[in-house]
Amino acid sequence: MKKEKKAVILFSSGLDSTAVLYYALSKGYKCHCLIFDYGQKHDKEIKSAVKIAKLLKADYSVVKVSLPWLKDSLTNKNKKIPVHKTISGIVPSTYVPGRNTLFLSFALSCAQSINAKSIFIGVNSVDFSNYPDCTPAFIKAYNGVLKALKTAIRVKTPIAKMSKAQIIKLGIKLNVPYELTWTCYNGDKSPCGKCDSCKLRAKGFREAGVRDPILKSSEE
Amino acid sequence: MKKEKKAVILFSSGLDSTAVLYYALSKGYKCHCLIFDYGQKHDKEIKSAVKIAKLLKADYSVVKVSLPWLKDSLTNKNKKIPVHKTISGIVPSTYVPGRNTLFLSFALSCAQSINAKSIFIGVNSVDFSNYPDCTPAFIKAYNGVLKALKTAIRVKTPIAKMSKAQIIKLGIKLNVPYELTWTCYNGDKSPCGKCDSCKLRAKGFREAGVRDPILKSSEE
Repeated sequence: MKKEKKAVILFSSGLDSTAVLYYALSKGYKCHCLIFDYGQKHDKEIKSAVKIAKLLKADYSVVKVSLPWLKDSLTNKNKKIPVHKTISGIVPSTYVPGRNTLFLSFALSCAQSINAKSIFIGVNSVDFSNYPDCTPAFIKAYNGVLKALKTAIRVKTPIAKMSKAQIIKLGIKLNVPYELTWTCYNGDKSPCGKCDSCKLRAKGFREAGVRDPILKSSEE
Repeated sequence: MKKEKKAVILFSSGLDSTAVLYYALSKGYKCHCLIFDYGQKHDKEIKSAVKIAKLLKADYSVVKVSLPWLKDSLTNKNKKIPVHKTISGIVPSTYVPGRNTLFLSFALSCAQSINAKSIFIGVNSVDFSNYPDCTPAFIKAYNGVLKALKTAIRVKTPIAKMSKAQIIKLGIKLNVPYELTWTCYNGDKSPCGKCDSCKLRAKGFREAGVRDPILKSSEE
């Protein structure tokens, strides 16, 4: 009997992590999705993520993370999500301190417990928001921690060097249900179209030459 | 006006982290204690930690961490805490996968939010339980992550190379109220005296030539 390949997937139902989940499944991994509830205003993504995990019959855990000290605009109800364009080299107010480090650490704990050797994360350093925890240097350093812990677990970043358009094309090839994904930082009924995340998504679909089904369904 | 030095302290009310908290205070740091509720059977340590933080008028947060996948004996009610002696090179069943990595990641998030430059952790690799997340290699690798994130925050380990007896002597010098600290892995009214953690504590007090006040008060 072939040994089962297991992976833990950091999964938010956004374009990137959904493509990564479908990618890992296509490579034969049995996936355990970690979905985080960290006080994000766009908690709609949690429901979307659960919906997609159930659709795929993938294991999942919704992990509640309490970070009472946060002051960023993504979790703070008194702060507006900025509408300005991403400026190269500037970390925007939507950056949640320590977010991916924390998420990877939960994934490590989960991976060690279920005997998974891979952690997949949808970080990307091409069309991204200048978050310092999405860079190749960060992932390399985090894998250094996994080595120091003498585990065989490694973080894998299959879309790190792809443009948003390339990620969308990969997702289409893998039958990602884009109408179920959620990207917008504002947790309203339909995407705001103004936040950084909406803008990067729109740019990606435009460059991929594909219509975003989420816009179609919200217009209907 | 002299700028305030801030630090985040991983604080469990055990011998090691209590000595570290008192050490950081003695060095002039304004301390924010992070106290973790991660499903440990010895949740008595949480109350002890809050009591000590209040006594010191230090800021503190009790952070609830949900790790539903854990199977170790420290959090699993169906598994007994082992009574055997620590064996060199063997990781015991009380090892909680990813624990210090997670705790440091919460500390990073907190430190970035409150503008602290230091994270203090009471890891020790002399009288310890062979946990891979207590070694100098692990701390070095974690500081590598902090560098990759381009933060000025660093993890500090003032008692890493001290024996348990040396830590206890340091604590006595700094007026640590040992009667309030909690070490035992079993969450009963008095320490069991049999678990690894109790044994290391007893060895430390014996070698320091001091009577452990917690034993005295439990005998009364």
